[in-house]
Amino acid sequence: MSNNLLKGKRGIIFGALNEQSIAWKVAERAHEEGAEFILTNAPIAMRMGEINALAEKTGSKIIPADATSVEDLEKLITESMEVLGGKLDFILHSIGMSVNVRKGNHYTNENYDYTVKGFDVSALSFHKLLQSAMKLDALNDWGSVVALTYIAAQRIFPDYNDMADNKSYLESIARSFGYHYGLAKKVRVNTISQSPTMTTAGSGVKGFNQFINYSELMSPLGNAKAEDCANYCIAMFSDLTRYVTMQNLYHDGGFSNTGVTQAVMDRFTEI
Amino acid sequence: MSNNLLKGKRGIIFGALNEQSIAWKVAERAHEEGAEFILTNAPIAMRMGEINALAEKTGSKIIPADATSVEDLEKLITESMEVLGGKLDFILHSIGMSVNVRKGNHYTNENYDYTVKGFDVSALSFHKLLQSAMKLDALNDWGSVVALTYIAAQRIFPDYNDMADNKSYLESIARSFGYHYGLAKKVRVNTISQSPTMTTAGSGVKGFNQFINYSELMSPLGNAKAEDCANYCIAMFSDLTRYVTMQNLYHDGGFSNTGVTQAVMDRFTEI
Amino acid sequence: MSNNLLKGKRGIIFGALNEQSIAWKVAERAHEEGAEFILTNAPIAMRMGEINALAEKTGSKIIPADATSVEDLEKLITESMEVLGGKLDFILHSIGMSVNVRKGNHYTNENYDYTVKGFDVSALSFHKLLQSAMKLDALNDWGSVVALTYIAAQRIFPDYNDMADNKSYLESIARSFGYHYGLAKKVRVNTISQSPTMTTAGSGVKGFNQFINYSELMSPLGNAKAEDCANYCIAMFSDLTRYVTMQNLYHDGGFSNTGVTQAVMDRFTEI
Amino acid sequence: MSNNLLKGKRGIIFGALNEQSIAWKVAERAHEEGAEFILTNAPIAMRMGEINALAEKTGSKIIPADATSVEDLEKLITESMEVLGGKLDFILHSIGMSVNVRKGNHYTNENYDYTVKGFDVSALSFHKLLQSAMKLDALNDWGSVVALTYIAAQRIFPDYNDMADNKSYLESIARSFGYHYGLAKKVRVNTISQSPTMTTAGSGVKGFNQFINYSELMSPLGNAKAEDCANYCIAMFSDLTRYVTMQNLYHDGGFSNTGVTQAVMDRFTEI
Repeated sequence: MSNNLLKGKRGIIFGALNEQSIAWKVAERAHEEGAEFILTNAPIAMRMGEINALAEKTGSKIIPADATSVEDLEKLITESMEVLGGKLDFILHSIGMSVNVRKGNHYTNENYDYTVKGFDVSALSFHKLLQSAMKLDALNDWGSVVALTYIAAQRIFPDYNDMADNKSYLESIARSFGYHYGLAKKVRVNTISQSPTMTTAGSGVKGFNQFINYSELMSPLGNAKAEDCANYCIAMFSDLTRYVTMQNLYHDGGFSNTGVTQAVMDRFTEI
Repeated sequence: MSNNLLKGKRGIIFGALNEQSIAWKVAERAHEEGAEFILTNAPIAMRMGEINALAEKTGSKIIPADATSVEDLEKLITESMEVLGGKLDFILHSIGMSVNVRKGNHYTNENYDYTVKGFDVSALSFHKLLQSAMKLDALNDWGSVVALTYIAAQRIFPDYNDMADNKSYLESIARSFGYHYGLAKKVRVNTISQSPTMTTAGSGVKGFNQFINYSELMSPLGNAKAEDCANYCIAMFSDLTRYVTMQNLYHDGGFSNTGVTQAVMDRFTEI
Repeated sequence: MSNNLLKGKRGIIFGALNEQSIAWKVAERAHEEGAEFILTNAPIAMRMGEINALAEKTGSKIIPADATSVEDLEKLITESMEVLGGKLDFILHSIGMSVNVRKGNHYTNENYDYTVKGFDVSALSFHKLLQSAMKLDALNDWGSVVALTYIAAQRIFPDYNDMADNKSYLESIARSFGYHYGLAKKVRVNTISQSPTMTTAGSGVKGFNQFINYSELMSPLGNAKAEDCANYCIAMFSDLTRYVTMQNLYHDGGFSNTGVTQAVMDRFTEI
Repeated sequence: MSNNLLKGKRGIIFGALNEQSIAWKVAERAHEEGAEFILTNAPIAMRMGEINALAEKTGSKIIPADATSVEDLEKLITESMEVLGGKLDFILHSIGMSVNVRKGNHYTNENYDYTVKGFDVSALSFHKLLQSAMKLDALNDWGSVVALTYIAAQRIFPDYNDMADNKSYLESIARSFGYHYGLAKKVRVNTISQSPTMTTAGSGVKGFNQFINYSELMSPLGNAKAEDCANYCIAMFSDLTRYVTMQNLYHDGGFSNTGVTQAVMDRFTEI
């Protein structure tokens, strides 16, 4: 399927690790819709990844970058404009990692060095990316930047741990930077709050299968899949959504506004 | 327990049907805290009620009023000021009823005459009350008006039916009228979004026991009880909360910001 | 511009009065994107309208309907399926009117007959439309229904009067019905909260020019225009947004998440 | 005025710098209401402060602590329980500082060392405080923890800079930790989102007088004063609000739900 929605547009896509990644699907769909883009990931993540196959399939170049390094980001952006032959129209930020989660630290037993490291990767990286892009004047007017987030930024999901706090900060950056970049260059910045998705990142969270099951039953349309999220990203990168900015957009089959479903209630007997 | 928080304050309390009613508990606590007030209810509801015992216990007079009748409301307010000897400081609106729910009509099969009747009782009555109070200049500066509501105004709870839409309208009235009454007279208007409570009204909803159980497990502090809600109302009527207005205040043991609890997750096995 | 995003899709568009109407622009864009649809409006509104020109331009039939009449709505939907040759994929609800506003009644001086009339037209009509569509099984799986709304449902804008309360109810219907229609048929229901727009409806509100000016300065991207809103509706009707449901989506150039702008602050001197 | 609302309760109050501080007013009111507490501040802040007068007036001991140091916090909490003779019932976190703001760095030109330093002081300190309290089992059942915040966590106020992002993280901690502490010990954790207040901290922000003026005109009740905020904190520390947790509570004279006021509109002429 192609509607040429991104024809002539250039971008950067962060976070395509493997076929399960939302960013991977975004790259495939952006290619179908006529975009040209650079793929990027942390050097360490890329060694494990199968990103070369994606690059080949989409005719994209890969430029590794540590998203916590302003130097790396500036190099990535500069080279991307050179390779693609002009300023950019879209960026996808799909980056997140909690060292406390990886190390099995409970939320009430954080190691604060880990907390700050995860914060830098998951949240501050988004500010560094936007600030670098703005300094290099890398985005065309009406460019569109999207970061992926999760509803844990609004409500507690115990196993999501300090990623919840990181996502709150990330979403605040979208609002704050969206204001400044909107005024300066008509660039819009939004976050998409996606259903839990069975990706490499997601599957690292304790009890994740169980949670996916719960979320499926709590969503009137069921959990949104990675492919659907990619479609939504295409819509947000396209010119159809030019006046949407500084928003957190739920792409979750209705989960966010569902207090309970009959299917969930059925697990609870009368007392 | 008394802290004399409402000493010298006068009010009207709607909706005390029986000992289970939140309004009943509010009347008991308001009396303890030194307030004088009028009890009111729909004439039809009062015939079933045990409200005389409450009136005796709290030294209050009862003035029946149909909350959908502007004439009744104006009479109630005028007489209340006469009986209590001055302008009022607080009002509790604890009124709600859906004819569609009573008649067993599904939300996708509303009878619109019933819908409008329930809307009038549950939502528009609050506007009529506030408009009547304002016209009669019945509230002292810094007076406080509270209406009880439920989180179904924000998220779907299937059995709550058209009461969800009514509560959305009710909460909007609190904001809209809170603005005008605040500017004119420093009167504040808020809604309290209370845990599901085992009252006569609540127990009419299908599957309510089951739902109370679910809500209990989804609330880090457990469901808030009617007594606790009464305490919160006292705080909102007192001078401790003078600058809180046009708000919807969750009194729910944390339910509203809880995406899931471990106790709920335990009902869902891995797939 | 066409991307064939709605090729093969059928729909109904309410509320195209004249070239200024958002619904008018939606019809033009939906036609460009390959959709076939019925135009509808209240019989009384259509006598004033220039809708015939739009029907001709887009190859559409006009079927008048009073949106407060279940009988009219059922007739409209049934005939639409006959004319278009199948079940529907999208509906736009762009209907709103406050009799209190028209008559110059202040929000604190409502005539409740007027209030209920405006409520029926502006809010309950959306439920009647959805209930009729569901009863007639008129929407295909993954169909998309959009109603236009305004941020007055969340925050007070004094001149918006009782339309604020109506919009709150309307948005609640989108959540409530979105749940049931999503479970039953994968149909999604959303509201788009649009910038103030210089339409026939908008220009009836007191101080509207002044307010448009304020809103423009409070929106980092400026106010969204009717054309842009039409583009956003196309995105919401397309298959790019299948898992977005029960949401209120701000299309407002960032107004909703802007506390203040420098341009607005400049109107306030130091004290 | 005293209602003995905090009789027998023990607490810790952070952030009383001078008579303008909200924390200072909270200390005065908590003393009037019968509480005993420890005053604390960063060692460096205390050298500038007049906190000794407050300690004398309220019969409190001062224990300096750097809120970014877990060691200092654990020492503070341990000593507080010793001095006060038992476990604690309430804590006020009134701490915030942005190095980027102090150094005059625009939001789009952050120095990330400064960003992380401000984040540690303004946001992470709240987690460190709660984690330390929980490890030391320092709070009684139904204890109440309040942190002060600002609506910039939800909407952009350009001069608030990276403090907006810090406040978003802070509010997320209140939800996340409120869940865990609620389940474990019935301790509730909330944030109060206060009107802009002419304190030492506030007055450091560029254009603050102008902004106070704007906020006053945008709040139906006017800006909430520090004294009123202290009253609200007392209500939140009292047993009247036991089931309120994980909430962000606006104490702002209605600002948060006001889209515009007539007084603000009057600054905008017709175009």
